Amino acid sequence: MSEQLIINFTPTGMIPTKEMTPHVPVRVNEIVDEVREACNIGITMVHLHARDPISEEPTYLREIYGEIIGGIREYAPDLVICVSLSGRNFKELSQRADPLLLEGNMKPDMGSLTLSSLNFNRTASMNSPSMVQDLARLMKEKGIVPELEAFDVGMINYVRYLEKKKLIDPPYYFNLLLGNIACAQANLLHAGLMINDLPGQSFWSLAGIGEDQLKMNAVAIAMGGGVRVGLEDNIWFDTDRTRLASNTDLLERIHALASAHLREVMPPSRFRDLLNLKKGNGQYGR
Amino acid sequence: MSEQLIINFTPTGMIPTKEMTPHVPVRVNEIVDEVREACNIGITMVHLHARDPISEEPTYLREIYGEIIGGIREYAPDLVICVSLSGRNFKELSQRADPLLLEGNMKPDMGSLTLSSLNFNRTASMNSPSMVQDLARLMKEKGIVPELEAFDVGMINYVRYLEKKKLIDPPYYFNLLLGNIACAQANLLHAGLMINDLPGQSFWSLAGIGEDQLKMNAVAIAMGGGVRVGLEDNIWFDTDRTRLASNTDLLERIHALASAHLREVMPPSRFRDLLNLKKGNGQYGR
Repeated sequence: MSEQLIINFTPTGMIPTKEMTPHVPVRVNEIVDEVREACNIGITMVHLHARDPISEEPTYLREIYGEIIGGIREYAPDLVICVSLSGRNFKELSQRADPLLLEGNMKPDMGSLTLSSLNFNRTASMNSPSMVQDLARLMKEKGIVPELEAFDVGMINYVRYLEKKKLIDPPYYFNLLLGNIACAQANLLHAGLMINDLPGQSFWSLAGIGEDQLKMNAVAIAMGGGVRVGLEDNIWFDTDRTRLASNTDLLERIHALASAHLREVMPPSRFRDLLNLKKGNGQYGR
Repeated sequence: MSEQLIINFTPTGMIPTKEMTPHVPVRVNEIVDEVREACNIGITMVHLHARDPISEEPTYLREIYGEIIGGIREYAPDLVICVSLSGRNFKELSQRADPLLLEGNMKPDMGSLTLSSLNFNRTASMNSPSMVQDLARLMKEKGIVPELEAFDVGMINYVRYLEKKKLIDPPYYFNLLLGNIACAQANLLHAGLMINDLPGQSFWSLAGIGEDQLKMNAVAIAMGGGVRVGLEDNIWFDTDRTRLASNTDLLERIHALASAHLREVMPPSRFRDLLNLKKGNGQYGR
């Protein structure tokens, strides 16, 4: 199989704390260093979550995102950088859209766009139709490409509506995230149906929550898709939870699987071509 | 095929107004009369939404639900009666659970339980994990059976969690509602996968939004399932939208399809047996 493998690296997320695992990077310099190590191993893009430097809680503030992005671009100007616009902790459009206001060398290439409201394990994630449309419109105005996040089968259908409303344009990149308790499960029928339902001109990665991460990543590598991998979704190396993973552990395992399939990791520059993103260190975005 | 057909009649809903269609029953006496006519045609259960008598907007008030239920039970003491506990307009548990406080002859047999947050066309429907669990717990305490509402494939999985937490018990009754814009679509793959994923001891009906109602109802009749049918989900008789439907029109079409399949409508008393509901006009509920 010759298709190159998209590796979407998710080092931090909103949930893992230093108490849960010492391996999770939360401070700006920790995230910048972790992404550098990941680039040395080989990744295509990074999905960033910023944390408040004092409380280590999630923050939407563009200043923090800007520091991380600026730090990464010093050593990896081509890496495709996606910021989280999650509504898990922040409810207002002005908060969620804040990282989209970054400019120049700190401007993100992509922003996450969850396609519907849903439930996580303990909390609801609110993404009302108007919020999804407003975020899509703002990204389009700024030439920032949405990272389309689908947690269940039907959420993919909303992309067709956004396209009809001219709020998004192909080519698309989807994260299909499986294994949340009230969403699509990490099995082949659910994953297969989601992949089958993607619009034309879609690139996709599979993600799994917890121990489902390895399953879904391996299935994607076998079947020609990309992977979303990192401590954001899974902090354990083994299903028995005897060993905490580092991001490096997780990435090296993905590389071992990719090698077995003779799949090369897609370089960021190639992903930029495919998504019509400007070359790195120019003006970022589309 | 000999299995009896569950017809879940949804005459009103939260969306249709008299301006949209003169056929929608909204006042207490209109709903009571419409359900009587439906009973004469043949139904198994009714899914009720109450409206404020002045504004004709949706209301959660148990007084109004009680008037409707009391009115229906004068002529149909066995009919299985389900009240809506929807979060579409009402956010607080105390509002949503209000109809569950009815007692004696006005006590509902069932209450709707949407299994996750989701997006409708224009609005989000919030059903946080704690809200779903609180409503399930309250229904269990009162012996009211949840009508399990799944709008997408993964939402079914949450039933396994609720069962593990001992918040619900089989046998179950599911409404599988297809065709919402950011949820499962009204096609055979999505419907088939949802039916396939149901836990053991589940009875199910298919519902479709708008012109998908007839498609999904007909598929269910063909494949041994039940139907949810009425103006709540669909106000048109034809896909070209040239003729507004009445509830009677919709029910008579279902009966014609059922006849073609030699399927009898399940009498309410039989559905009571299957769900372990008490006989009508005793103490209602389980």
